[in-house]
Amino acid sequence: MVSSYKVADYLLDRLAQLGVRHLFGVPGDFNLHFLDHVINHPVIHWMGCANELNAAYAADGYARVMPAAALLTTVGVGELSAINGIAGSYAEYLPVIHIVGTPALDAQKAGELLHHSLGDGDFGHFARMAKEVTCAQANLTAKNAVAEIDRLLVAALCQRRPVYLQLPADVAQADVATSLGELSLPQPLLSPTSLQAFTDAAREKLQSAQRIALLADFLADRFGARQPLRHWLAEVDLPHATLLMGKGLLDETHPMFIGTYAGAASEANVKAYIEEADVLIAVGVWFVDTTTAGFSQHITQDNCIDIQPEQVRIGQKVFNQIPMVVAVEVLHQLCKSLQDEWQPSMIAHPVLEAPQYNILDQKAFWYHIQHFLRPNDIVVTDQGTSCFGAATLTLPSECILFTQSLWGSIGFSLPAAYGAQVAQPQRRMILLLGDGAAQLTIQELGSMLRSGLNPIIFLLNNQGYTVERMINGPQQRYNDVAEWNWSQLPQALAKGKESFTATVTQVDQLQQVLADIENIEQLAFIEVVLPQMDAPELLINIAKSLQARNTVL
Amino acid sequence: MVSSYKVADYLLDRLAQLGVRHLFGVPGDFNLHFLDHVINHPVIHWMGCANELNAAYAADGYARVMPAAALLTTVGVGELSAINGIAGSYAEYLPVIHIVGTPALDAQKAGELLHHSLGDGDFGHFARMAKEVTCAQANLTAKNAVAEIDRLLVAALCQRRPVYLQLPADVAQADVATSLGELSLPQPLLSPTSLQAFTDAAREKLQSAQRIALLADFLADRFGARQPLRHWLAEVDLPHATLLMGKGLLDETHPMFIGTYAGAASEANVKAYIEEADVLIAVGVWFVDTTTAGFSQHITQDNCIDIQPEQVRIGQKVFNQIPMVVAVEVLHQLCKSLQDEWQPSMIAHPVLEAPQYNILDQKAFWYHIQHFLRPNDIVVTDQGTSCFGAATLTLPSECILFTQSLWGSIGFSLPAAYGAQVAQPQRRMILLLGDGAAQLTIQELGSMLRSGLNPIIFLLNNQGYTVERMINGPQQRYNDVAEWNWSQLPQALAKGKESFTATVTQVDQLQQVLADIENIEQLAFIEVVLPQMDAPELLINIAKSLQARNTVL
Repeated sequence: MVSSYKVADYLLDRLAQLGVRHLFGVPGDFNLHFLDHVINHPVIHWMGCANELNAAYAADGYARVMPAAALLTTVGVGELSAINGIAGSYAEYLPVIHIVGTPALDAQKAGELLHHSLGDGDFGHFARMAKEVTCAQANLTAKNAVAEIDRLLVAALCQRRPVYLQLPADVAQADVATSLGELSLPQPLLSPTSLQAFTDAAREKLQSAQRIALLADFLADRFGARQPLRHWLAEVDLPHATLLMGKGLLDETHPMFIGTYAGAASEANVKAYIEEADVLIAVGVWFVDTTTAGFSQHITQDNCIDIQPEQVRIGQKVFNQIPMVVAVEVLHQLCKSLQDEWQPSMIAHPVLEAPQYNILDQKAFWYHIQHFLRPNDIVVTDQGTSCFGAATLTLPSECILFTQSLWGSIGFSLPAAYGAQVAQPQRRMILLLGDGAAQLTIQELGSMLRSGLNPIIFLLNNQGYTVERMINGPQQRYNDVAEWNWSQLPQALAKGKESFTATVTQVDQLQQVLADIENIEQLAFIEVVLPQMDAPELLINIAKSLQARNTVL
Repeated sequence: MVSSYKVADYLLDRLAQLGVRHLFGVPGDFNLHFLDHVINHPVIHWMGCANELNAAYAADGYARVMPAAALLTTVGVGELSAINGIAGSYAEYLPVIHIVGTPALDAQKAGELLHHSLGDGDFGHFARMAKEVTCAQANLTAKNAVAEIDRLLVAALCQRRPVYLQLPADVAQADVATSLGELSLPQPLLSPTSLQAFTDAAREKLQSAQRIALLADFLADRFGARQPLRHWLAEVDLPHATLLMGKGLLDETHPMFIGTYAGAASEANVKAYIEEADVLIAVGVWFVDTTTAGFSQHITQDNCIDIQPEQVRIGQKVFNQIPMVVAVEVLHQLCKSLQDEWQPSMIAHPVLEAPQYNILDQKAFWYHIQHFLRPNDIVVTDQGTSCFGAATLTLPSECILFTQSLWGSIGFSLPAAYGAQVAQPQRRMILLLGDGAAQLTIQELGSMLRSGLNPIIFLLNNQGYTVERMINGPQQRYNDVAEWNWSQLPQALAKGKESFTATVTQVDQLQQVLADIENIEQLAFIEVVLPQMDAPELLINIAKSLQARNTVL
């Protein structure tokens, strides 16, 4: 055994230095030697997944609660299986380092007729594809490896997006002379002139107002504004809301938290506070069709202070080179100094009604889930009835929730929950997903059990794609899925692992099960049988708008 | 309801006209209206799959036994999930029509912040990705739809490769004035001069030879040479073999059939006949690393007549514009006229030894599978021990076999077998795959049962990726997979469907089960427990060569 320092070691040490503790993926013959280094690494743990798309989703979920995530696949077959997951991380700003084990450089240069290639001798196809969905790409050689690894990691961390790193089998084992120093991350650009102009304009805007509200969304989470926002809202009484993708970003137990804003599909109270504010401060907000009921937000640009990652806009005026956290701090201090002059708000919080009958429908289900949640839980939902039901929950303190509303790839949630729980096994994981979604990626239930994790999984069985039925074809066969014996799956997918399974069809059964599993230490899989055409109100409203937009009148 | 003729109808009618009877895929909100047309179509049946990659594999399997296949996904999430399957069809020459439901054209033009997009208003990302792995692409409008649909279908059929067709939600419902005529397929280019020169050169070459042999591979199947080759070999006594990807192309009960050629890993008899021939006629042959034990074929170009789809080479001399079937016919007639002057061959066929003990290992397993096969079976194997074991089988007449040795995407076989059996339900389907491979795509077992199909599935449980263990890290944890209770899966993945399941660990149990299922009418799922480090000899040899090629010495 040669024990000198190799490219593989350098890459793994860098990942560890950034806070990455796990590598998700699937082995393939072009990455097996690299995997030997992974297995021997003191910090990075190998997390083999059942397939590559699931591994990419797991990495995405991991990156939502960690500084970054890493994914390993083999060339061609592996990377392309994962690419939908990578695209989701790109759309939703998650730094996933995608390492692709490729054939030795000489074989590539010779254009050999290798397996996992298209057979045309062109080894550039997949890098060109990856370029569309990653923010930086590199093809490592022994010479460029150190510089290119560092460049890619910096890009991923600064831009909060996936990067694509081709690691030829021979390059992984090439010697590296450099020892590991600090990775210097460039500071985001800050223009003092622009900042002063923004501060002045913001003061003027806020002074002239009476009713101020704040709306936050997922980019605030991605660009480090979560804690600064919470400090601000702890010191200043501002009615505030999030969009669905930003849910869990703010403290929902705060008396001035209003709820989830969703354009015309919002609750009346939320809609009024957000749309009728004299000044709306938007932090990291993207108005996506699925989170705004088809762009039905009524927010005039003139009333808006819009903070994006590197830029702020007040009305029509754009201020460049102002990092989000700097803008947030400026507004925090301005609001603190001005708040006494503003009209005080009293938020009325709607009280959820307890279900009166023993009929288990969406309304009754979410009522009980609301009471089941605890501080510090991680809640993960898929893009069906589950995320639109969860949108109306009030999260306990330090409870986070994630869903994938922009990219919206069904099946995402199960492997993503796996990834997030691998990252933070000490937190309770609650996964809510439908039967249609679960079928896409069910394999990772086996990985959860194999890894000894204990998520609480609610499988909302409404016999097909209810989210699609709401949009078109409620009775059409294409919205049906194969009927599975859901409660048998945890046992089928794990030999010799204990788990708790139950099927509930009535409210009292659900209550009993929730009591049973409250402090469970093993995986719990609860099949919740729900009416096929029942959906949370928010979904009904959003589906109507999507239906209208795809219909030729 | 408007009942006029729409783009959706035209597309479906064209597919039906080409012999496509089924459309595989997953619904999404941008393709739901198109799906209404599918459901109403008199010929095309909707085959909803559990996820898009599986649907793409199913379409690939379908295209292996039908004139073409069709796949429907939604934009972004759906198409990218499927793209590894499409790339496999591209690499291995299967005409799959990939229809992608996209947002209405106006929404795309406006660059709206839609779900399933990257959020940057650029709706061209995915078409640019598809361009790398499809032979033609189109973005339909009401105006171009008819011409573009026809152009793509012609490209798919002539080039035998997948095409990418973006169908905006509004365009699917646009009126079409044209009625459906014949789709005229251009004839492949044929140069009479080139043909004459080739004929003369081939005659000269063959006249000077004593020992002639023929080697056929997958491209002969794709470009219509299957029957012409069989006629030729029925009339002329030529020792002949296939490569692994071409297995099943020739009649293996023919006395002059030698076996599977695999370079240095070939059986001695096969190697001798192929490598020591004075003239080797190669039809549609690609020497891929995995089918030649790392390019260990010893075939001198000077001795070779190499027939490719549109070109022939004799020694160093290239003859362009000669379609494969024309070249085959020329050589057929030349051989017929010359054969009396050649040295006759007597092929010695090795006799498989019956296992002496009750120990179930790879050797014993394949011995019994050999005797289980029947004429007309379709055999599908995955890229692990199963395909290398199957490589040594002698197939009964009209029995076909497919595997995916060039693209080599593990997990391919289960959905591909589903697709092929949907196409030809009257044939017995025998699927052989390992536990590692099965975990990637297990969902489609549910689809098989839902569709009432009755494949016979042998799950070779050797506790992990044995094919990878042969290459590197035999005891490494990364080659382990989650342990599943395999025999519980058919029931877990199908409610109310009967199936036959069994687990065998000894030869006598295997024999009993094979007797039980010989004429079974329901799905049979047999878990065959095999030693972890046992593999077919062919795989051991090939793995050694792949290992050497990825190792830095």
